[in-house]
Amino acid sequence: MEKQKGLLLVVSGPSGVGKGTICKAVINRNPGVKLSVSATTRAKRPGEEEGKSYFFKTREEFERMIRDGELLEHVLLFNSNYYGTPRANIEAEIAACNDIILEIDYHGALTVKKTYPDAVLIFVAPPVMEELKTRLEHRASESEDAKRIRLKTAMEEMRMIGAYDYVVVNDSVEKAVTAIEAIMTAEKCKVSRNEALLKKLMEE
Amino acid sequence: MEKQKGLLLVVSGPSGVGKGTICKAVINRNPGVKLSVSATTRAKRPGEEEGKSYFFKTREEFERMIRDGELLEHVLLFNSNYYGTPRANIEAEIAACNDIILEIDYHGALTVKKTYPDAVLIFVAPPVMEELKTRLEHRASESEDAKRIRLKTAMEEMRMIGAYDYVVVNDSVEKAVTAIEAIMTAEKCKVSRNEALLKKLMEE
Repeated sequence: MEKQKGLLLVVSGPSGVGKGTICKAVINRNPGVKLSVSATTRAKRPGEEEGKSYFFKTREEFERMIRDGELLEHVLLFNSNYYGTPRANIEAEIAACNDIILEIDYHGALTVKKTYPDAVLIFVAPPVMEELKTRLEHRASESEDAKRIRLKTAMEEMRMIGAYDYVVVNDSVEKAVTAIEAIMTAEKCKVSRNEALLKKLMEE
Repeated sequence: MEKQKGLLLVVSGPSGVGKGTICKAVINRNPGVKLSVSATTRAKRPGEEEGKSYFFKTREEFERMIRDGELLEHVLLFNSNYYGTPRANIEAEIAACNDIILEIDYHGALTVKKTYPDAVLIFVAPPVMEELKTRLEHRASESEDAKRIRLKTAMEEMRMIGAYDYVVVNDSVEKAVTAIEAIMTAEKCKVSRNEALLKKLMEE
């Protein structure tokens, strides 16, 4: 049977909801699923690796990538650093029948959906909002200002759920991961993604 | 968290593809999933139970049900027997948050989708057409005429895949059942099926 192209999954959700943990678990359990590595202008932190954590770029390099259309989407965050998704790697993985996960915010998600209408948009939501607020307020490493901005951004993200295809409630990592795996299996069964198979069956 | 309404799943596929076996396995593995019991005018066969295998009706009773709008869909098959889906039981199961599977042909599937746009239409396809043809040709119990009609109907069904949401290839029962379970999980994560949950989160 002819292999399907890979899925392009976009996973978003408010800061603190646990989407990073969920995405890592999905990737660890499914060898054919890759995580897109973002490019950023923010400084490398201890333990981070070039090309694995991020592609670390100078502001000049990043702005050249934007100009040359090498990024699928990008954002200038409130801390004045750029983050973006390099297009080449994603297209290579999809063509190689691997699925790829982009962990990006809703601006990025909407941009990706415009370029790839086939992209699957998943929103990770907290089981109750109160829990998320408490978690964001207890981030010891952050200033009061940073916390306030982060909470405001989280609420803004929550209001964008309507633009997504699926919502996965993170009441446990295990359940959330299983739900994302089910979404991937179901998406691959969509009639619209199986035109080649169906054409072949009808020709027999 | 407020419980979602149940899913209305429609499973179709050509005669001989194994959809009956698959549906039974889905129901056995998932206590919250029920199989819709059809009404029919065909004679009861040994071992069949009223209300379990079918609701057995006289032609007069069946035609009264049609007139009174008690059937979601119905069909008069080439063997001149009526088959139909009683509406009441389905609506009761969905309201009780159970999922319900209707194993019906594409005419019925399209009728159901018109009445319930939320219904999930799944087509079970053979991995190769040749296998299906061989299986239909070897049904010892049937006359040559019946076989020919059955094969023609199977090909007609296959041409209707485009009207379905998902296609599940029956290369193994286990894989097909897992795919249907994944489709059910994914459908329940659809943003469009979670309006109550999202409203509640946003109000907190």
